[in-house]
Amino acid sequence: MSSHHIVRDDQEPALIIANGAECSEELMGQLLEWSPLVIVLDSAIKRVINLGIKIDVLLGDFDRDFDPEQYRDMQYPLEIVHTPDQNKTDLEKAFDYLINRGFPAVNVIWATGRRADHTITNITNIVRYREKLKIVMLDDHSKIFQLPKKFEKWYTAATPISLIPIGKAEGIITKNLKYPLNDEALTIGHRTGSSNEALNDGIVTIEHREGNLLLMECFD
Amino acid sequence: MSSHHIVRDDQEPALIIANGAECSEELMGQLLEWSPLVIVLDSAIKRVINLGIKIDVLLGDFDRDFDPEQYRDMQYPLEIVHTPDQNKTDLEKAFDYLINRGFPAVNVIWATGRRADHTITNITNIVRYREKLKIVMLDDHSKIFQLPKKFEKWYTAATPISLIPIGKAEGIITKNLKYPLNDEALTIGHRTGSSNEALNDGIVTIEHREGNLLLMECFD
Repeated sequence: MSSHHIVRDDQEPALIIANGAECSEELMGQLLEWSPLVIVLDSAIKRVINLGIKIDVLLGDFDRDFDPEQYRDMQYPLEIVHTPDQNKTDLEKAFDYLINRGFPAVNVIWATGRRADHTITNITNIVRYREKLKIVMLDDHSKIFQLPKKFEKWYTAATPISLIPIGKAEGIITKNLKYPLNDEALTIGHRTGSSNEALNDGIVTIEHREGNLLLMECFD
Repeated sequence: MSSHHIVRDDQEPALIIANGAECSEELMGQLLEWSPLVIVLDSAIKRVINLGIKIDVLLGDFDRDFDPEQYRDMQYPLEIVHTPDQNKTDLEKAFDYLINRGFPAVNVIWATGRRADHTITNITNIVRYREKLKIVMLDDHSKIFQLPKKFEKWYTAATPISLIPIGKAEGIITKNLKYPLNDEALTIGHRTGSSNEALNDGIVTIEHREGNLLLMECFD
């Protein structure tokens, strides 16, 4: 049993377990350890329930003959949030729920893999929450987050760094990348900055003037 | 041993095996059966070589201490295509290779899963080849292709159909979808048409005036 259910401080990121491919138990364990709140999306609970972890919120539209009440006793206390709005994905509804509860940050697992439509929608919808919620999406090969206008972080040389524009990102200026960008634009489907890497041990700086830009730290 | 190596006609789609997550042997077998040419990308050959299938072309930049020559005897005759250009992904280079050889169509497997940067780049780069090559990307949960300006296909009711704009797609008009679009726009990261579905058994029509629009047939 994880100790995540001890609410330390709402400043720690919540954890959302979405409905894509499962990640390693090691990654999940790392994220659970510090998470004050764990939300599971819809029928993902069928897979989560076997992992022996405590969850706090089960959220979804619960269609397709799925009864969430059966999990209430197994996970007491469990908040069940029924969100029938068909104009948003369950993941977006979970982001809205966290914003309403005042959470500043969230880690998301199981949001990639399996269905490609869900994967691409989950990844690209991060940008809608730019000003509202700090979102980090993780799987066994990837860490994904949106860049602020100016981003600085220390990386070891040759760390893979991919810059993925959601739409078009303009005025991109980088320092300490192997393939530098100097006031350039990236456009999804036409020119992305996939498979770049840190040049030397040290601070990598990535600025952009307009648009939405994701950073992906990925590894085989 | 598959019969794919009997060259029937270059009008059948070639098959590219990329470097993402493996698909089921059943899916691969279906695609191999009709494919006149099989291309494997770079170090994916390490995983493909154990499947007992005949490949025709091994293509990649072959960095990271990888020697493609060791596979020449095991897969004789094998064409080895060294493509060191760092401005394109191996998948794009394989598309270029097929266009140069006059192929009109290709199926792509193992292009999704594992690294999210590769997945999103592989899926969205389809649109660069709009006029040059008919590309269908497949995995165990997804079939992905770019829509022409007017698309018509027979679907059974409730078949999941996701419309994913790469950038912005405008003037979208649909018939026989559960959530119809009537001269509307979709924008990646802001409004996508994920998780729509065929309304009734019959022809689904999807037109768009501007931009690039992918259709994804996905299932859990």
